[in-house]
Amino acid sequence: MDLTTAEATPQGSGLPLAFHGTIIHSLDVDELEIIEDGMIVVGADGKIEALRKNVSKGEVNGIVSEAGYTPDVFPVKYLKRGEFLCPGFIDTHNHAPQWAQRGVGRGLVIMDWLNKTTFPHEAKFEDLEYAKRTYASCVSGFLKQGITTASYYGSKHSQASKILAEICLEKGQRAYVGKCNMNRNAPDWYRDLTAEASIKETRDFIAHLRKIDPEKSLVTPILTPRFAISCTHDVLAGLGKIAKENPDLPIQTHFNEAEQEIEITKELFPEFKNEADLYEHFNLLTERSILAHCIFVDEYEMGRLKELKCGVSHCPISNTTGGVFMVAPIREYLRRGIKVGLGTDSGGGYSSSIIDAMRQAFIVSNAQQTLTKGKDPSLSLKECFFLATLGGAQVCCLDDKIGNFTVGKEFDALEIHTEVTEQRSIITPIEDEDSSEIIWEKFLMSGDDRNIAKVYVKGKSVKV
Amino acid sequence: MDLTTAEATPQGSGLPLAFHGTIIHSLDVDELEIIEDGMIVVGADGKIEALRKNVSKGEVNGIVSEAGYTPDVFPVKYLKRGEFLCPGFIDTHNHAPQWAQRGVGRGLVIMDWLNKTTFPHEAKFEDLEYAKRTYASCVSGFLKQGITTASYYGSKHSQASKILAEICLEKGQRAYVGKCNMNRNAPDWYRDLTAEASIKETRDFIAHLRKIDPEKSLVTPILTPRFAISCTHDVLAGLGKIAKENPDLPIQTHFNEAEQEIEITKELFPEFKNEADLYEHFNLLTERSILAHCIFVDEYEMGRLKELKCGVSHCPISNTTGGVFMVAPIREYLRRGIKVGLGTDSGGGYSSSIIDAMRQAFIVSNAQQTLTKGKDPSLSLKECFFLATLGGAQVCCLDDKIGNFTVGKEFDALEIHTEVTEQRSIITPIEDEDSSEIIWEKFLMSGDDRNIAKVYVKGKSVKV
Repeated sequence: MDLTTAEATPQGSGLPLAFHGTIIHSLDVDELEIIEDGMIVVGADGKIEALRKNVSKGEVNGIVSEAGYTPDVFPVKYLKRGEFLCPGFIDTHNHAPQWAQRGVGRGLVIMDWLNKTTFPHEAKFEDLEYAKRTYASCVSGFLKQGITTASYYGSKHSQASKILAEICLEKGQRAYVGKCNMNRNAPDWYRDLTAEASIKETRDFIAHLRKIDPEKSLVTPILTPRFAISCTHDVLAGLGKIAKENPDLPIQTHFNEAEQEIEITKELFPEFKNEADLYEHFNLLTERSILAHCIFVDEYEMGRLKELKCGVSHCPISNTTGGVFMVAPIREYLRRGIKVGLGTDSGGGYSSSIIDAMRQAFIVSNAQQTLTKGKDPSLSLKECFFLATLGGAQVCCLDDKIGNFTVGKEFDALEIHTEVTEQRSIITPIEDEDSSEIIWEKFLMSGDDRNIAKVYVKGKSVKV
Repeated sequence: MDLTTAEATPQGSGLPLAFHGTIIHSLDVDELEIIEDGMIVVGADGKIEALRKNVSKGEVNGIVSEAGYTPDVFPVKYLKRGEFLCPGFIDTHNHAPQWAQRGVGRGLVIMDWLNKTTFPHEAKFEDLEYAKRTYASCVSGFLKQGITTASYYGSKHSQASKILAEICLEKGQRAYVGKCNMNRNAPDWYRDLTAEASIKETRDFIAHLRKIDPEKSLVTPILTPRFAISCTHDVLAGLGKIAKENPDLPIQTHFNEAEQEIEITKELFPEFKNEADLYEHFNLLTERSILAHCIFVDEYEMGRLKELKCGVSHCPISNTTGGVFMVAPIREYLRRGIKVGLGTDSGGGYSSSIIDAMRQAFIVSNAQQTLTKGKDPSLSLKECFFLATLGGAQVCCLDDKIGNFTVGKEFDALEIHTEVTEQRSIITPIEDEDSSEIIWEKFLMSGDDRNIAKVYVKGKSVKV
């Protein structure tokens, strides 16, 4: 193997590379850019070197040349009508061990669902062979569905969670991976047995992830207290200490998720008026915090989230399929400039698809509009698409790297094919008169993973 | 061809036939029967001749013999673990011409959506080649998704609607097909130009369908006033007259679908206090009436629906993706013994899948539980499954023929395969310890058309 070439194409996947055709991405929450006859050049390092609009095919060679490459021999992929590029989806809340329990136990309220369905299932990840098999299926399944970045909760097992991180690295998915901390309110057969062990395992887990991906090129450890109910003060304090020592570490937890959860948290931590104060006290609310659900958040707490620059992971499917129908005030978060992304919460919901999550985000925003008598208008599809891409990147503090096709960012992208074929027969057929926006709308509303023909992470094709 | 054999297997599809394995169907709204090691024998006429429980493989030949067939040579299909039979899905509200506009225009309130998105689209069915192509794709698409019976609105064009019926017959889908009556509040380029023409075309359409399927073996004409807003008194009276002359004809319309629609109806028909009185006056509320949506139905109207034995087509997707979030009081309908089925309302919603409709029925029932502070408890998955099968059959007055696997009914069934393969990689994986009920739950919550391996209508395999 010629090392020079290997260095020039570090992932061995045909980079550099260019695309010509329709390119669709979000510039801001309410600003969708649809580029017709666009051209995008991806460098050998997987970064976007050029993004141009209204490029005729005759102009392609000139742009290749301008970018410093040799025309004619440079690989350019031409997208046909009905095909377009969009940014990869970002799943800001995902319990990887729940891959094999998706949809089971819907209708149970949170603590029942944890004890009856989830804990017995997650406990199986003690078995590392089971973990390998299930996480391989999980990561492939999410990549196939266009999730180029996921923020994963592992199980409480640090060994299995290391396997999850290794599989992400091997399959080429960008991921935050956390060993789940939980040392109480869970059965003895599925919890960290002491606070010390919980923290020690976490430190060891972080060190392992830094070792396997020293550049944080794809995989980053994330602090993952399950939620305050399952952590003693010692564990929360220990994690806060790690966060202070490592200000680059992201943090994730569940936040004001359900009435039952909020009540129990207050009983366990009577010294705090609310969850914002609780997690802030333990140094767990930073601009790198990803807070899942955020249903019942009052004026004061919203102020803290904004001030501390925390991100909200909106999980509209699990919010409406547990024992109760709950709507997070997403319009209000957006109005205040609080960061918001989408989470499949696969396991807690039923679907592992961000496309489903976008549709459900749209539906629950209609509910919120009705419930607030119009004060909180519905989300548009453009806004839902933003949440699934650039919004998610902001929540993960990765918007300098991914989320849209700004020059200089890494190329995490999906190649969407909407033409009806034997394989892809369910999507709404494209009609002669359909604009690119209608084609995009048909994909969002009626497409699925079969319409995601290629998935790229850092320029590398990873579709499995 | 040997005519004797042809008569014995009238549809040329390998009947008679038996299945052995897990069989799941509804006996009543809250009664799901899961038959382990079941055996079902389907006769040459497509009817169920035997349904047996707990049959060991050694007993199969005895049952074949009992049913009057020759053991050993009789074809028995053995279902493996992870596979089961369930009744075909019944879609009680489906606008076939909207197949190619699914998902488009979501967020618009009803009259805007009709004028901007739907009418221009439906007008294309004037072109019979377009109709042939689009309806072929539509009927195949629905069959593929397990919809063995659909109640279709056609466009206003009787010719195109005849083509739809012919395609259903050719592809083997059981269907109600209606030429849509609409002679006002629609643009000149897309409406019946006179009441006389509207009625005359309808009579001609009915005669044609009776000619092509004289036994009503699969295709039945259905009276289809779009809704009162689009019909003058003359048209409603003319349709009511046809209904009186033909008491076997089913009838479908939209009923109390949206606040805007109800207001306009009251302006156009000030002589009626409500829509129940209006449609009843015109002889359009009978036990064969399928009323779509039924969102805002008061005590009086509920009484009429019950008394007149009308059926409700619940369309939870379109009810929540138009400009407003609306929840039909399904629990209350069930409590009163009013017939309820599910509709994809594909076009008005975004999905052509009854599986999606079941999930959304579950979700909006959670909303209704919250909105009524627990008075109307959520639907269980069992109830949602009932709505998609036996409930739909009741709404169509076809429950003597289809909807479950009662001996004597016609065999409309789906063969569900849940094993994860390259093709079917999104469904929640089945675990060793999963019961048949959990496998069924995983299919309902995370499966899609890829898990519907075979579709049978009247015993004939029709999967396309």
